[in-house]
Amino acid sequence: MREMIAAAEAAADAAGAVIRPLFRSALLVEAKGDASPVTEADKAAERRIRALLAARFPDHGLIGEEYGAERADAEWVWVIDPIDGTRAFVTGRPIFGSLIGLMRRGRPVLGLIDQPATGERWIGVAGQPVMFRGPMGGTPRTRRCAALSGAELSVTSPDMFAPAEAPRFARLRAAARRVTYGGDCYAYGLLALGLIDVIAESDLKPWDWVALQPVIEAAGGSMTDWAGQPLRLDGPGQALALGDPALLDEAVRLLG
Amino acid sequence: MREMIAAAEAAADAAGAVIRPLFRSALLVEAKGDASPVTEADKAAERRIRALLAARFPDHGLIGEEYGAERADAEWVWVIDPIDGTRAFVTGRPIFGSLIGLMRRGRPVLGLIDQPATGERWIGVAGQPVMFRGPMGGTPRTRRCAALSGAELSVTSPDMFAPAEAPRFARLRAAARRVTYGGDCYAYGLLALGLIDVIAESDLKPWDWVALQPVIEAAGGSMTDWAGQPLRLDGPGQALALGDPALLDEAVRLLG
Repeated sequence: MREMIAAAEAAADAAGAVIRPLFRSALLVEAKGDASPVTEADKAAERRIRALLAARFPDHGLIGEEYGAERADAEWVWVIDPIDGTRAFVTGRPIFGSLIGLMRRGRPVLGLIDQPATGERWIGVAGQPVMFRGPMGGTPRTRRCAALSGAELSVTSPDMFAPAEAPRFARLRAAARRVTYGGDCYAYGLLALGLIDVIAESDLKPWDWVALQPVIEAAGGSMTDWAGQPLRLDGPGQALALGDPALLDEAVRLLG
Repeated sequence: MREMIAAAEAAADAAGAVIRPLFRSALLVEAKGDASPVTEADKAAERRIRALLAARFPDHGLIGEEYGAERADAEWVWVIDPIDGTRAFVTGRPIFGSLIGLMRRGRPVLGLIDQPATGERWIGVAGQPVMFRGPMGGTPRTRRCAALSGAELSVTSPDMFAPAEAPRFARLRAAARRVTYGGDCYAYGLLALGLIDVIAESDLKPWDWVALQPVIEAAGGSMTDWAGQPLRLDGPGQALALGDPALLDEAVRLLG
């Protein structure tokens, strides 16, 4: 696993080097409302990540947002999203991230969340404590939460739910202490630092969640679908992340 | 004005020194769901700011969230909020801020937005270009926006609107290209960097907006109430910030 962690770090470094120069750049300011500079950065970063991983692990599969799947039936499959949180990125918020996950036989075993703008990085590997570094501090361990009524809930946007999902999320939200909007992958990193208790989102693609799950689990939390079942590549993209897995039954009941 | 700018900077430095040690601290993690450590930091920072400003300008008035108003009828009145974006702060998002504004005869003439976690600071003074510094770059100048249909809209939370306001905001949102959630004062700083075009919010207190207006205006934008009129200390707290003031008529019509 050590060389895979090193490869994930090298891939995140390469992605950050492509992405950082565009962040808050004149190019992005002028291209207001036009996603193409971001798409170009996303594509260029994904090509760098793919090339680096394919050179080190030629037998591994690759799944990414911009260039699709290669060898997706391999034992080991990397799942990558160079810029998670496009809206945050284009509006200058430093809370977008690069996500690099690794699945073995369909189960996420390694996850890396990198924040190119803030310099923070989380790495989660099954059975090991989360590695976290960054200039603003934080302890990579989820916190206990006795009941949803005391929970900090987070969601990127109220618009991410399908009409049938909205009332289910509304029940969870009504039970939580408080909800904060915005965050994308960054919120999952903050849950792994014990600062957020619950995240419930929908419409996630594999590259949005595969890298997050090993970080959340290694920090002491759980990440499942809204029914409390393991997330699947072919699932509906509903994710439920909990800092304290003891909340699972209550959360699943409300989201059911 | 130079000594007032220097005083605002010194006050923001003092507030940051109180606030930074608490950000993502074990104290905050353990106090989950309990606002008291934040309230204590807010109070301590406001005391520091008040003491510093009162010593330099004994005739000036002071208005703050935690300690109310003193000499509010003075020619010059400082309006302060040591931690704007409490939810962002308690959930570890580095996008909360300290706000220090100065009004002369009821009109905001100086505004400072400080981000203790990211090290960014905006200072706006009527008739001068915005001073901006920070490690992540950006150019302190709003951008042109030909029509709302091309605008990046931002709002801290969909829950900040009263029932009568929600459909008015929904009309604006339907006309904009895209909406991003979260941000508090930070979003106004990003609008001043030409990365966001429109912010429409409500339920703002004087300490939430007085410091923002001089930054927005000095960067080339406008900040009014939802009717396009000057914001007032005794107004309803509806704010409309535009990077391109030419959008005012269209935005006011939709919000009306």
